[in-house]
Amino acid sequence: IAKEVAKLLEMKAQLGGDEGKHKFVLKTPKGTRDYSPKQMAIRERVFNAIITCFKRHGAEVIDTPVFELKETLTGKYGEDSKLIYDLKDQGGELLSLRYDLTVPFARYLAMNKITNIKRYHIAKVYRRDNPAMTRGRYREFYQCDFDIAGQFDPMIPDAECLKIVHEILSDLQLGDFLIKVNDRRILDGMFAVCGVPDSKFRTICSSVDKLDKMPWEEVRSEMVGEKGLSPEAADHIGEYVQLHGGLDLIERLLQDPKLSQNKLAKEGLGDMKLLFEYLTLFGITGKISFDLSLARGLDYYTGVIFEAVLLQQENDHVEESVSVGSVAGGGRYDGLVGMFDPKGRKVPCVGVSIGIERIFSILEQRVEASEEKIRTTETQVLVASAQKKLLEERLKLISELWDAGIKAEVLYKKNPKLLNQLQYCEDTGIPLVAIVGEQELKDGVVKLRVVATREEVNVRRESLVEEIRMRTSRP
Amino acid sequence: IAKEVAKLLEMKAQLGGDEGKHKFVLKTPKGTRDYSPKQMAIRERVFNAIITCFKRHGAEVIDTPVFELKETLTGKYGEDSKLIYDLKDQGGELLSLRYDLTVPFARYLAMNKITNIKRYHIAKVYRRDNPAMTRGRYREFYQCDFDIAGQFDPMIPDAECLKIVHEILSDLQLGDFLIKVNDRRILDGMFAVCGVPDSKFRTICSSVDKLDKMPWEEVRSEMVGEKGLSPEAADHIGEYVQLHGGLDLIERLLQDPKLSQNKLAKEGLGDMKLLFEYLTLFGITGKISFDLSLARGLDYYTGVIFEAVLLQQENDHVEESVSVGSVAGGGRYDGLVGMFDPKGRKVPCVGVSIGIERIFSILEQRVEASEEKIRTTETQVLVASAQKKLLEERLKLISELWDAGIKAEVLYKKNPKLLNQLQYCEDTGIPLVAIVGEQELKDGVVKLRVVATREEVNVRRESLVEEIRMRTSRP
Repeated sequence: IAKEVAKLLEMKAQLGGDEGKHKFVLKTPKGTRDYSPKQMAIRERVFNAIITCFKRHGAEVIDTPVFELKETLTGKYGEDSKLIYDLKDQGGELLSLRYDLTVPFARYLAMNKITNIKRYHIAKVYRRDNPAMTRGRYREFYQCDFDIAGQFDPMIPDAECLKIVHEILSDLQLGDFLIKVNDRRILDGMFAVCGVPDSKFRTICSSVDKLDKMPWEEVRSEMVGEKGLSPEAADHIGEYVQLHGGLDLIERLLQDPKLSQNKLAKEGLGDMKLLFEYLTLFGITGKISFDLSLARGLDYYTGVIFEAVLLQQENDHVEESVSVGSVAGGGRYDGLVGMFDPKGRKVPCVGVSIGIERIFSILEQRVEASEEKIRTTETQVLVASAQKKLLEERLKLISELWDAGIKAEVLYKKNPKLLNQLQYCEDTGIPLVAIVGEQELKDGVVKLRVVATREEVNVRRESLVEEIRMRTSRP
Repeated sequence: IAKEVAKLLEMKAQLGGDEGKHKFVLKTPKGTRDYSPKQMAIRERVFNAIITCFKRHGAEVIDTPVFELKETLTGKYGEDSKLIYDLKDQGGELLSLRYDLTVPFARYLAMNKITNIKRYHIAKVYRRDNPAMTRGRYREFYQCDFDIAGQFDPMIPDAECLKIVHEILSDLQLGDFLIKVNDRRILDGMFAVCGVPDSKFRTICSSVDKLDKMPWEEVRSEMVGEKGLSPEAADHIGEYVQLHGGLDLIERLLQDPKLSQNKLAKEGLGDMKLLFEYLTLFGITGKISFDLSLARGLDYYTGVIFEAVLLQQENDHVEESVSVGSVAGGGRYDGLVGMFDPKGRKVPCVGVSIGIERIFSILEQRVEASEEKIRTTETQVLVASAQKKLLEERLKLISELWDAGIKAEVLYKKNPKLLNQLQYCEDTGIPLVAIVGEQELKDGVVKLRVVATREEVNVRRESLVEEIRMRTSRP
């Protein structure tokens, strides 16, 4: 054995030696990507739309560290816990990368004894999932969360969350969408009246959650085969989860002989009715569907749950039109903060998370297809010269412009050709060129050239800042 | 032995059992912190000032993942590598959290074969360092980097980096500051003429770098004692590193009988002279000091290096006035991209990093001291009612306001008291209240109340949006 080990060690050393020869892979980690300036420009547009909406609804903003104590995340994500990234034990605390922004938010509330806040948080989260990058599924991805925490009258904050989803998806013009709504209490009541044992509620809920990706037959066989549910109970569930509609369906289920006898279901249906009344006042019921097949994966939801799906893509690839999937989701989680509070004090919460990566993918593809030219800088003017030996004059002028708040660039060459300077403006979309030359310096003027029209005017040096501002005031 | 092990295992199990009893610590990981809404408000102000400056200089923006392949970071940070956070090996690639934004930038350039870019990047980086949070030293902290990559004429981009530091520190009004400048080539030339052996250049450079925290005597004894430098060489270095000044000092050193004979030093001094000429054109030499004691810790610098320090704090705590330390730093690193390129192709780079956390600390303390009231939301109007049973009317009105782009809030109560609604405005700084009541509804008006003056006017419902916009147009 010792001999074998020695051999293996030798082989290992050789391999190590090989690696030393710079067999270096130049890439980002699996499931992650860089954002190029062009992608950042699209990203900033989307963020702006979302942040504007969150601020319109009076949200504050917070931030939390990218990692949490490992135990902070333990027991919050059910079956998904295996997807959490852990940090190496290098001495000190055991840490994990955040899996979402909701658990850190709940930890923040409990830690700071906050019982009342409306906040948003935009940051990256981490999941060791199978990436599908073309469809916008990454291991590092942004979440844009808006949550309302506090003890309030029923369904008012819940309705506002749905209004926010409606506003953002309308504003981003992603095409037609539908917001599915359900309630964990209705689901649990339904499971109870269908004969699902209490202990199986959460796991059967997980199966129902797969209905957007699998046909009912498969989900049914998972329930009966893997999870040991009786075929009768499964079939009974099958009847309910086909149902979707609006106020009419809620009214019908409130009369349903079985559901109406179940306390939880009745509560859930009553609140659902109230929610629809508020959504009617907001004028958005046209895109809302009360859908009994909506379950949501996460363990921590306790009341209303919802998910927004895009109904088709702009460019109408029929195959893809169904698979775009969820672009926003959320719900009520009244118990999560209590899990962190030493005395178990609850802070009711409801929130929404915008699935920004899928939205990026769609907008990126759209920009690509349209050949729209996206500027990646905001530079208003290039400071240029037609003759040699004017670097000092260019630097003096650009310094004046910077100090006056003008966005200006200069080529980092001692004697750049005018043609190259103009070409740079064409390439990067800079609208104006301020040209200094011997004659202009003598006359105390600068030649201002409009790149698009090639028009040139002499502007007195003391009026240059004003002239540039005026000519670039419309963005 | 087996018995002892069994005992120990038993003890461990007991301890484990104890831990199970929810002895849960409610905290963020060591060296990290949450940002409250108030802190975020200050943070956004600072970011705005910095981003505005970066954009004024025509920078694009990129983003990279929070972790890199472990080998991407290997061999870039010299003695500091031990401070890198590694991720746990959960199968798949070995990953580390980024230590700065410069190495990921170089990796990005090499990977995408980019030879020419001016970009900024604002993101968190991670160092397992000893935190000193009151002085703004964290394990998770922001870097705000601006870099210019490409083959250009000497010192033009380098001068722009210093102009940027000058603009940002002036704009943020942090008090008086000084930007120390040196050049790695001058340092290396100085080491050579002082008789430091080539092999000791980097380690002696590390010692010189400590001169801002230690007196010369201690640094000298580190050089001689720990690092085995001859006392003569150390004393010789000691004479040079006392020197600081401007163009005059550069001229003097260009005449220095020893330094002027050294090729590297001569090159560095020649470029330093050129740099000062450009800085004179920018009008900023008043706050620049050519300082031979400036060394910078990182291995990858190859030319100009610089560091900005605050000279004293606003509130004049004499003790603290020296220790505020560096708030920005950077330099030229012409070899780093080549370390990633399979063929070793170099892309010269120069860049600056703004040390935002220390700036936050200072501004936070200042806000605290001044008792300035910082708004954490931008809400323009609270939709309120004086009477009961008007929730529906409040929701209808606020929905109209949101759809018109007005930032509006409503209390999530069915029948809130008017006093509570007004108090909410006082607490959060909302300037206007739109009050609906039976009479107003009949008359087709809304009562608009100015919180500060208690003035109330009836506004026709169709003019309400315009009226709110007008009254809140000055931010």
